[in-house]
Amino acid sequence: MIQTVKGGVCAAKGFTANGVHCGIRKNKTKRDLSLIFSEKRAAAAAVYTTNLVKGAPLTVTKAHLADGYAQAIICNSGNANTCNANGIEIAEETCALAAKALGIAADDIVVASTGVIGQPLDITPIANGMDALAKGLGDFGDLAAEGIMTTDTVKKEVAVTFTAGGVTCTIGGIAKGSGMIHPNMATMLVFITTDCAISPALLQKALSTDVQSTFNMVSVDGDTSTNDMVTVLANGMAGNKEITEEGDDFAAFMQALNSVTVDLCKKIAGDGEGATKRLECSVQGAKDKATAKIVAKSVICSSLLKAAMFGADANWGRVLCAIGYSGAEVDVTKIGVTFSSAAGSIEVCKDGAGVPFSEEEAKKILSEHEIGIELTLGDGDGEAVAWGCDLTYDYVKINGDYRT
Amino acid sequence: MIQTVKGGVCAAKGFTANGVHCGIRKNKTKRDLSLIFSEKRAAAAAVYTTNLVKGAPLTVTKAHLADGYAQAIICNSGNANTCNANGIEIAEETCALAAKALGIAADDIVVASTGVIGQPLDITPIANGMDALAKGLGDFGDLAAEGIMTTDTVKKEVAVTFTAGGVTCTIGGIAKGSGMIHPNMATMLVFITTDCAISPALLQKALSTDVQSTFNMVSVDGDTSTNDMVTVLANGMAGNKEITEEGDDFAAFMQALNSVTVDLCKKIAGDGEGATKRLECSVQGAKDKATAKIVAKSVICSSLLKAAMFGADANWGRVLCAIGYSGAEVDVTKIGVTFSSAAGSIEVCKDGAGVPFSEEEAKKILSEHEIGIELTLGDGDGEAVAWGCDLTYDYVKINGDYRT
Repeated sequence: MIQTVKGGVCAAKGFTANGVHCGIRKNKTKRDLSLIFSEKRAAAAAVYTTNLVKGAPLTVTKAHLADGYAQAIICNSGNANTCNANGIEIAEETCALAAKALGIAADDIVVASTGVIGQPLDITPIANGMDALAKGLGDFGDLAAEGIMTTDTVKKEVAVTFTAGGVTCTIGGIAKGSGMIHPNMATMLVFITTDCAISPALLQKALSTDVQSTFNMVSVDGDTSTNDMVTVLANGMAGNKEITEEGDDFAAFMQALNSVTVDLCKKIAGDGEGATKRLECSVQGAKDKATAKIVAKSVICSSLLKAAMFGADANWGRVLCAIGYSGAEVDVTKIGVTFSSAAGSIEVCKDGAGVPFSEEEAKKILSEHEIGIELTLGDGDGEAVAWGCDLTYDYVKINGDYRT
Repeated sequence: MIQTVKGGVCAAKGFTANGVHCGIRKNKTKRDLSLIFSEKRAAAAAVYTTNLVKGAPLTVTKAHLADGYAQAIICNSGNANTCNANGIEIAEETCALAAKALGIAADDIVVASTGVIGQPLDITPIANGMDALAKGLGDFGDLAAEGIMTTDTVKKEVAVTFTAGGVTCTIGGIAKGSGMIHPNMATMLVFITTDCAISPALLQKALSTDVQSTFNMVSVDGDTSTNDMVTVLANGMAGNKEITEEGDDFAAFMQALNSVTVDLCKKIAGDGEGATKRLECSVQGAKDKATAKIVAKSVICSSLLKAAMFGADANWGRVLCAIGYSGAEVDVTKIGVTFSSAAGSIEVCKDGAGVPFSEEEAKKILSEHEIGIELTLGDGDGEAVAWGCDLTYDYVKINGDYRT
């Protein structure tokens, strides 16, 4: 049984967090440095952006996680520390400062950055802020969630409990989504903590499997960031027998992880830059899962469809168009499209052609904030879900603003 | 020597055209039916959208061009005749009506449609308008160019002369770009006519080769239409010896065709939905041409970069980001980026990292209407150019408007 509980990264036993303004950003009301700390050294796993241009922190984090363990996560916003000549050095220095303040080894630290690319990151504010950040550690997952925000309009956190080996465990996370006030990249960062005991190998397997159908199925604007990272720390303090192989406990962990990641996916999609609506495209009846994923993602990424959703326009031709150019093998004459929301659902296309429907009813359904685009392909059992958002004036405004 | 001359599809000998309002659109001031006619039956070639969802007119046109010849092109705007149960029937009926009015065979007619998807196309206005359309044929390539426009803000035509076998030949074309007032698809249609004598096989070869580096390198919003089509008619009336094999004459023809298609590409990109700026991304030093094309297209398609260009923001990090996720094999540490326009040019990134530059100067350069994004990759001789436009409030407005 998975139950949602309060909090985020501090919900699991043995985790504390904090977020402060150290001065990377000029706006003093905006926290720009976050820390997550585990009492005990924890099994650690991570996945990274596939962009060839990678932020320096990713390189350092990869090295630090090579042994499968970590004890803290340090993350700044306001500067991505990417495409800088001294990026690696700064990321390592950040870890050294955190290690000293926490009294742990520097290579037990995960480091991440989000913000403008190609501008040198000054270590001074980080050095000045580190002590207060570490001393203030407590049940402040919300402050940590704030410290990693960029153009996010709401902080994103979630936690759930589940049972492994008869023991109640907790898993929670925080995320930042897409966009920056001082814009450069739609960067996604996710930090997850759990007190469940699980080996590094199984933890990595769980995460690598899960992201295929969760974070890799979210798109705000089709731009894959240079700094994306999802990290999980598992400190074992729940006291369950360590999960070291696949089985019931691993399945329970996977399910709990998935409920955390799906929740964060929805929050990231719904808070995409300028978004007024969250879109969820679910595909059924594809010839296989890979095909279902290609179709769902193509639909969620279509600028034309995203703009139509902004306008609450039941323009199903754009859905078919996006399926058609997705590259997936689909029989166009079997496609069905239904739009849904809290206001109801309406079939608009069957067997690849339009069906009569009430435009008024459709407009009512599409005027809600959470829109479902349900596709049936009639070719098999393949299913997938993808999340995105509408394309709005504000997306253009946020990203067209002068950087200088 | 290629020389630009006046006109479009009627510049070459033996071609007449016309465009009328027949009533497919409600707005009586908007022409919605265009006809292009060749005195003599012409060699014909075409390329079509790769979208699996294809407009019915494409199916009919493909069948009609199977023998490599055609004599007329009929095209309506206001309705794409796509995803309709009786689409094929309507497209065939349109050809039959044109054939009767022109006194030629129905299978010598190219038929195309652009407009809303999934709404039955009524043959009545087409039937009513056909006689006037055919009787009014003359040196009216501009009216034909108007009749295929949707949200295009300017009509697009171009013509050039060239020499093949010592004879002056002419080639010209019209195009419609992306967008519809009653929006559905960003549809590109291009009709080209020439009096050069060339065999159907060589004409098809020329067109198929040319589009790889021209129309296939244009993106307004990444949405591949269901109705895209590029057609060339070559009636041989210039009197040159028919080009039946590769050689100097074929090369001259290819070059002339390319000058027409590149011109139309630029016009389509510059008049993309809501665009205030045309973007041209040129890549040099890629390890091969395929890599150069992938990189150029990825940059031109980035929503983040497109929004930055709207804001005249020299945000080169977004260029690197788009190169990094393009899937192309690139050495990030060798990338160079220069922005250019009529106001000058400015280097912003060298060897994958930022170089100091004047933000003021950069803003001046990016405030022009035609922006160059020049990339050097330092890996070899591969070159490519891609065309696009900025992402603006008006793109969202045009495509978010209620369809109903």
